Amino acid sequence: MQKASIGIDLGGTAIKGAIIGETGIIGDVTRVPTEANKGGQQVMSNILTLIDDLVKKSGRPASSFIGVGIGTPGFVGSDGTILGGAENLPGWKGTQIYAPITEKFGLKVSGANDVTAVALSELMFGAGRGVKNIVCFALGTGVGGGIVTDGKLYKGTHGMAGEIGHIVVETDGVQCPCGQKGCVERYASATGIVQIAVEMSKKASDSELTPFATAVRSNPAEVTSKMVYEHVAMADAIALKVHHKACDMLGRAVGIMINALSPDRVVLGGGVMMAGEIILDAVKTYASRHCWPAIFERCEIVPAQMGEDAGVMGAGALAFEEFG
Amino acid sequence: MQKASIGIDLGGTAIKGAIIGETGIIGDVTRVPTEANKGGQQVMSNILTLIDDLVKKSGRPASSFIGVGIGTPGFVGSDGTILGGAENLPGWKGTQIYAPITEKFGLKVSGANDVTAVALSELMFGAGRGVKNIVCFALGTGVGGGIVTDGKLYKGTHGMAGEIGHIVVETDGVQCPCGQKGCVERYASATGIVQIAVEMSKKASDSELTPFATAVRSNPAEVTSKMVYEHVAMADAIALKVHHKACDMLGRAVGIMINALSPDRVVLGGGVMMAGEIILDAVKTYASRHCWPAIFERCEIVPAQMGEDAGVMGAGALAFEEFG
Repeated sequence: MQKASIGIDLGGTAIKGAIIGETGIIGDVTRVPTEANKGGQQVMSNILTLIDDLVKKSGRPASSFIGVGIGTPGFVGSDGTILGGAENLPGWKGTQIYAPITEKFGLKVSGANDVTAVALSELMFGAGRGVKNIVCFALGTGVGGGIVTDGKLYKGTHGMAGEIGHIVVETDGVQCPCGQKGCVERYASATGIVQIAVEMSKKASDSELTPFATAVRSNPAEVTSKMVYEHVAMADAIALKVHHKACDMLGRAVGIMINALSPDRVVLGGGVMMAGEIILDAVKTYASRHCWPAIFERCEIVPAQMGEDAGVMGAGALAFEEFG
Repeated sequence: MQKASIGIDLGGTAIKGAIIGETGIIGDVTRVPTEANKGGQQVMSNILTLIDDLVKKSGRPASSFIGVGIGTPGFVGSDGTILGGAENLPGWKGTQIYAPITEKFGLKVSGANDVTAVALSELMFGAGRGVKNIVCFALGTGVGGGIVTDGKLYKGTHGMAGEIGHIVVETDGVQCPCGQKGCVERYASATGIVQIAVEMSKKASDSELTPFATAVRSNPAEVTSKMVYEHVAMADAIALKVHHKACDMLGRAVGIMINALSPDRVVLGGGVMMAGEIILDAVKTYASRHCWPAIFERCEIVPAQMGEDAGVMGAGALAFEEFG
């Protein structure tokens, strides 16, 4: 029987689950609603039902799986208690996520932050294959991170490592909800890019106005990072300025992490990276200015390879790493 | 026979060597001149003579040691070649440091950056005992670093990890020889503290002048970080401003590393830390403003416990870690 784990990727609106083998997903990805508004116990109950469903569909006994891996927003303590940092899931903090699964299915459980799990997914299945040390930046609504050292996911003692979205890259920069000013998340996330676009468009003088800035001004609430990059592709001067600001700031954080950890690869993923090569090239240029040359030249900056199933595959990889 | 390694700590003027057991130094620390100006081969030859001397004095056969550990300025590649970053040792770059030792003594060799080795020394013998994840900042002429993840020294694939002295903490800040502006090393090293002191004293208006600033102005070339902290102890307003600037900047870098790695402990060492508690307390305050509270409250910021033999003990610990 093929060695396999059960991967669970918890999101704000849906929970995704799949059987994960050593080379990827076996069968289909199953989705159920999270029902976050009904509190932590209901979410946990939905996870148990989903696991039950996956086991049944697999046609093999629960005991044949090496374990369950769970990627979740926030921090997972070493005993499986959610320690916080999952504001989109009210009542999730304090929930014990290992014991109910072990009780019901007799399986060991390994949990981690969802973005951290994605880093492991890249290591096992994607852009990190063949190397031992990687740092992943996930550019989505926020900026998340995941760190792999010596071939193992680095969680930190309390499951809290990888908060690289809150590296300060501009002194007295944009206010961040975390309390600091100038976090890289305020510039290089989708939200951050939009905010830069709105502000640069507002500040532009009449002679500087571009089609992009005019569109942003007329409907600032509808701006997206995708729209920014559509105008970057048309060489709109203000869209290009937004792009360079975002990549400069991201490049600074990437440079700091390269100097600190000298990884083999920095992997850039998340929705913002749909814009692809243009971001990659600019970040390489800016990051090189924030690194020791000898360290920088030994590190590749590459795009993530995993798609929308990175989370559930990373969750399955957690179990492989710990129990495989 | 007690399990032991041979630790070699290479400095710009002296090479220190000692036999290292599981609880510390066995016997004495032996010093020989580096003779850096005579080139890499002479330095290597001096290391071989020192090892020979240590083995003879130990009264036990070379084969009884688990291996040799070497802490050196710069970066050590995985095959034992010095990859660079050791500007105070002309001709050291490119030297192969493992093969000659293995050839002559039949012993395995593990090398690392000297400051990185100090981090391992803290883990094995000092402020890092009992925990798995630590980040060390060494505040000397420059700012060096060492990272321990999951109980192991993290060297990075090319032995280059830990360049945390070049984390940029002030946008468009003080020019650093590394090419960046605003590296933490420009503020929190002995050199950096002196530079802040000279500039703040120069800028002070007549009404702001303090005894410290007057002394600095009259003889800027003689200022030391020790002198700054002597005046901090006397509550000199300008010395206090220098102190807070240095600790604010160091706190930013400490905060970034705590967010990224969520270590159990951050260890502050090096000559600057002779000033002790006052720096520790200020750095704690400033670092807390650059961290997620949930991560910060799970990390202690503590002074280094190892003294002047940290380097040679860390070198010995390298061999214990790899071959013990």
